[in-house]
Amino acid sequence: MKERILKAAVDLFWRYGVKSVTMDDIAKELGISKKTIYQQFNDKDAIVKEVVERELDCEQTDIDRLEAEASDPIEEVMRTSDYIRASFATVSPVLLNDLKKYHPKAWALFQKHKHEHIIQGISGNLRRGMEAGLYRSDINVDVLARMRVEQIEMAFDPAIFPPQKFAIIEVHVQLIHHFLRGILTDQGFEVYNNYAEKSVLEANQK
Amino acid sequence: MKERILKAAVDLFWRYGVKSVTMDDIAKELGISKKTIYQQFNDKDAIVKEVVERELDCEQTDIDRLEAEASDPIEEVMRTSDYIRASFATVSPVLLNDLKKYHPKAWALFQKHKHEHIIQGISGNLRRGMEAGLYRSDINVDVLARMRVEQIEMAFDPAIFPPQKFAIIEVHVQLIHHFLRGILTDQGFEVYNNYAEKSVLEANQK
Repeated sequence: MKERILKAAVDLFWRYGVKSVTMDDIAKELGISKKTIYQQFNDKDAIVKEVVERELDCEQTDIDRLEAEASDPIEEVMRTSDYIRASFATVSPVLLNDLKKYHPKAWALFQKHKHEHIIQGISGNLRRGMEAGLYRSDINVDVLARMRVEQIEMAFDPAIFPPQKFAIIEVHVQLIHHFLRGILTDQGFEVYNNYAEKSVLEANQK
Repeated sequence: MKERILKAAVDLFWRYGVKSVTMDDIAKELGISKKTIYQQFNDKDAIVKEVVERELDCEQTDIDRLEAEASDPIEEVMRTSDYIRASFATVSPVLLNDLKKYHPKAWALFQKHKHEHIIQGISGNLRRGMEAGLYRSDINVDVLARMRVEQIEMAFDPAIFPPQKFAIIEVHVQLIHHFLRGILTDQGFEVYNNYAEKSVLEANQK
């Protein structure tokens, strides 16, 4: 039952954000009573925290796999970008903001994950790219890794990119390509242009 | 007297941030009594608000002039960058954060300025660069202008770039060159490489 509740909660949060989804909505979605939910979770905050924990673990596993499969650091970024793009396609633009505003514990988990995993992941990619001669040797890895992780969050901030005016996916695509181009060497551009053309072709074929 | 108080306040805020500077400090700096200050300003908040208003006006005038003097959009960015770099060289890293936390009215002025002037200024530069063939034709001006203005603020955010670990100027230089490279066409790179080499030479001669 616990698994079913978490699954339903993820689906609803993903579609509508966290704030507008009530315990009633989750119960209704599953055709069960609210009492049954409260047997498993003290309150909505407990559900949100567990949902976020699992999502972050799951996302980390996916991204580690993508990195292992990529043949060079630029392909790592392109694959991760496609993965993020696919996730964003179905996510409510208010999700991260709801967490930040109404569920500080879950938000703290996300922030911890950001500092322990995402920044490390980006830094690793930057170092590999520099060693391979694909990224400029004069970039400051710490500065750009932190900047990039802020960009990912920024795409979800309604004060910066109001969802009525900006599609998250368009913001993400603009930022990731801009980020990558900003760090490339001439040799990096050759590799990047190859992937960029391929990725446009794939998108057109869909 | 009002002018002298504002001048002393700017100097102190610039060096030490806003929070740690008291009315006593300002009075001491000028060798006057606190009473004299209170004849001109109701409280520190009133001084802060007027200081910020004037600084923003002054900065806007400087940047408009830099833009008018530049011979192409890339030079505009390089000159603005040098201007920002010169300002950052003397500014306390906690200044913006102090405003945000302790002086919401002054912070609101800064946010308004950001949306009405800075984003407009960056958008104008992006459009001119695209028309001149120096910037890519596939950039989304609205997205990148908002991203860039967030970057400027980010350099001052101690939660992102703790001043014990990062020098604001290094962060600024990394971000501005990364930003510019991320939007350049091949033709843009030719112009940029010229300026970048010159600017390194000038820096070395200092």
